[in-house]
Amino acid sequence: MSRRDLTLLTDLYELTMMQGYYEQGQNETVIFDVFFRQNPCNNGYSVCAGLDQVIDYIKNLNFTYDDVDYLRSLGIFSEDFLHYLSGFHFSGDIYAIPEGTVIFPKEPLLKVVAPIMEAQLVETAILNIINHQSLIATKTSRIVFAANGDGIMEFGLRRAQGPDAGLYGARAAMIGGCVGTSNVLAGQLFDVPVMGTHAHSWIMSFKDEYSAFRAYAEMYPDNCTLLVDTYDTLKSGVPNAIRVFKEMKEEGVHFKKYGIRLDSGDLAYLSKEARKMLDTAGFSDATITASNDLDEYLLHDLKMQGAAINSWGVGTNLITSKDCPSFGGVYKLAAIQNEDGEFIPKIKISENTEKITNPGNKTIYRIYDKTTGKVKADLICFVGETYDTNEDLLLFDPIETWKKTKLPGGSYTMREILVPVFKNGECVYKSPSVKEIAAYCRQEKKTLWEETKRLFYPHRVYVDLSQKLYEVKKSLLDQISATN
Amino acid sequence: MSRRDLTLLTDLYELTMMQGYYEQGQNETVIFDVFFRQNPCNNGYSVCAGLDQVIDYIKNLNFTYDDVDYLRSLGIFSEDFLHYLSGFHFSGDIYAIPEGTVIFPKEPLLKVVAPIMEAQLVETAILNIINHQSLIATKTSRIVFAANGDGIMEFGLRRAQGPDAGLYGARAAMIGGCVGTSNVLAGQLFDVPVMGTHAHSWIMSFKDEYSAFRAYAEMYPDNCTLLVDTYDTLKSGVPNAIRVFKEMKEEGVHFKKYGIRLDSGDLAYLSKEARKMLDTAGFSDATITASNDLDEYLLHDLKMQGAAINSWGVGTNLITSKDCPSFGGVYKLAAIQNEDGEFIPKIKISENTEKITNPGNKTIYRIYDKTTGKVKADLICFVGETYDTNEDLLLFDPIETWKKTKLPGGSYTMREILVPVFKNGECVYKSPSVKEIAAYCRQEKKTLWEETKRLFYPHRVYVDLSQKLYEVKKSLLDQISATN
Repeated sequence: MSRRDLTLLTDLYELTMMQGYYEQGQNETVIFDVFFRQNPCNNGYSVCAGLDQVIDYIKNLNFTYDDVDYLRSLGIFSEDFLHYLSGFHFSGDIYAIPEGTVIFPKEPLLKVVAPIMEAQLVETAILNIINHQSLIATKTSRIVFAANGDGIMEFGLRRAQGPDAGLYGARAAMIGGCVGTSNVLAGQLFDVPVMGTHAHSWIMSFKDEYSAFRAYAEMYPDNCTLLVDTYDTLKSGVPNAIRVFKEMKEEGVHFKKYGIRLDSGDLAYLSKEARKMLDTAGFSDATITASNDLDEYLLHDLKMQGAAINSWGVGTNLITSKDCPSFGGVYKLAAIQNEDGEFIPKIKISENTEKITNPGNKTIYRIYDKTTGKVKADLICFVGETYDTNEDLLLFDPIETWKKTKLPGGSYTMREILVPVFKNGECVYKSPSVKEIAAYCRQEKKTLWEETKRLFYPHRVYVDLSQKLYEVKKSLLDQISATN
Repeated sequence: MSRRDLTLLTDLYELTMMQGYYEQGQNETVIFDVFFRQNPCNNGYSVCAGLDQVIDYIKNLNFTYDDVDYLRSLGIFSEDFLHYLSGFHFSGDIYAIPEGTVIFPKEPLLKVVAPIMEAQLVETAILNIINHQSLIATKTSRIVFAANGDGIMEFGLRRAQGPDAGLYGARAAMIGGCVGTSNVLAGQLFDVPVMGTHAHSWIMSFKDEYSAFRAYAEMYPDNCTLLVDTYDTLKSGVPNAIRVFKEMKEEGVHFKKYGIRLDSGDLAYLSKEARKMLDTAGFSDATITASNDLDEYLLHDLKMQGAAINSWGVGTNLITSKDCPSFGGVYKLAAIQNEDGEFIPKIKISENTEKITNPGNKTIYRIYDKTTGKVKADLICFVGETYDTNEDLLLFDPIETWKKTKLPGGSYTMREILVPVFKNGECVYKSPSVKEIAAYCRQEKKTLWEETKRLFYPHRVYVDLSQKLYEVKKSLLDQISATN
């Protein structure tokens, strides 16, 4: 609710572990990876977002006197440790995939390389920010895909999970492809288009619907969208809207953008009837906007049924990602540096093969088909592994290893997608504007095959491991099972 | 970073409507009601929360120069109106049901009585705040109910929908009945217990599990909960924990609170096995904490199967209210004051009878059975209607009006639950502390019948209308249908 530093926005155990490391004199450099295991809503890809807020968070990390006093009051921290905290700043490196990039499960979308005490502290807030914005950017992408070129407006502020969820949700929605938001604060802070017209209460506060429409049309000839469902959409709302459009035309007023908004009833039926009425009256350029509990599934169905809707306002289902309200990003230890400066890979095992982490200091290459420019696969490898795209590249599934593909040399291109964001505690990355990120995200989606963008049962993009990474992982697993 | 007022955290249409009213010279006093139509998760009741943040919001309403400049840049607002905004403050009245009260669908849980321009502006932020916190308080109540006396800890920050969702979600979770939160900032700001121990990364950063446990136990004898599932829960984790507990005991260390945490695998089976092992080793007072994708349904089932778990950490499903991530609070015009100072009731009709609003300037009485102290029903009536509890009270269902109950005089008590919060723009209400609200909420739930608290198909509490309100509503509906 306030733009306050978020240093204490962390789980208590980050601090108890930090003190543990402090007391042990243990502060080796480690690597933590942020990754997720499944795309939300069974989508074929995700869109990462939130990095700019992570940067702000890291830059502003700092325990104030009040913070230290509060921690002292808990009675579990030593004065030495509290003294250490009062001088705390982040001194490590962060690498991340830029916002708006399409991403896939299991690849590190953010990597923290820092002394363990620092790397541990930042876990919770980084996950909170990235999980939230990536969720909403991904959900929005689905809704935008279903709209097949129609504009989607983000209208969810009143149903968002608190002020930040509304504000940063609107930001993520713009990255995911919305044409605008109703959220004025988001417009101010992120320089994105704000949109909206009037509510039922506007109509109800006038003596009748016609007078309310007329007053609104006189005020807002540049963008006059009249809400037609307060009393009866087809018997009262649309006829009154047409009457006002006619009067204004006769009086020589030229609307820049005008039309009606439907907010209840069967949107397919009502929009088709309203379209006929508007066309017959000579207003074929009037837009029909719809709202009311929309999501990608209903939108997809309404389009299939030929709903005559040009513009969609989506609220609750977008801003909360209602059918899948969390993005399961996790933060896992991948390596610990030894005295020689070498990163020793670490692995977290699990009964569930899918949950076993990828060890070591890694990066990611995205591989494109040279002819089409479409994504072939992502390749996770150790930092420092090099590839010559003139040579054949053998990709194999890291679990079902018999699934192999050979890409002939010269047929593909590669691009490293993890980029440096912090180096030795200094930010070395300049975030693009939200509009630029949104434009980049549109381009990113063009690199996906249509089969991957499908709403239902999309084709999976492969995320493979380099031969070297695969072997290290396998040998760590063998070591552990030998010990048990 | 400084505390930011949320004045622009509103939908654009609130501002375009405001300007509309401004240009029309229309600023009569109106009444808007906040109410909801359905309890989240098909619960039998909801818990209202968020009022303290609404109070902050209203107190801090103020358009700064930057805000006005931004609005000017949109090119849709007149200089006169912008000048009016720069001097804006809230001058109206607000009534609300205090936080932590159990509430039911369709009753106004907050009522704004203010000039229409002011009342319209505050819609979005009020709904955002109340919807979020009431959702999480209600979801938490369900989870706490399923735990049947065990403590529930809020562990969801990393999966919350942004920083505020984590922070105010933790606040609402405490109101709903959690015993603590992992969220340190929530602990600092709301003076509530913070909890937590260590993560898998702690274990992995030591040469082996035993050393990690040992180091932790030495550091935190007051609250030593060891996470036992990093390698193998029953073969490695629990035996190593027992070894450390034994050693520490032999060394004369007395743990205040100690035990293990399970975070994967089958929690029913593992907890029962771990319980046996701990008991056999003489640690029958060691607690077993569980986490890992818990919600009220799984918790209910685990309890049914005799899981030996004393304490539960609940994350994603609580902090996002995963199966129902929005609380459908709406803000509807209920009355407009005429020149004589009389409130003329307004009604919003709908094809759907359930969606028709209750008109007029209303209040709510909660009716209790005098003998048991349990809630009999809520009664919505006009402000000023009086009741004598020595007389019989006839209640009837506002839709199926033949459903009637007569409460004999002397058998019931009544309490008005809407209280004044702002009068003429001045705050006249002092919010209790979160701990006080949580204690009050526990009392509130005791006034509900067990049948209403049930997780599945709970018994509905009736919300009835007074005879007078019913008649006014009916006559407004008749008028409207006569016009069509």
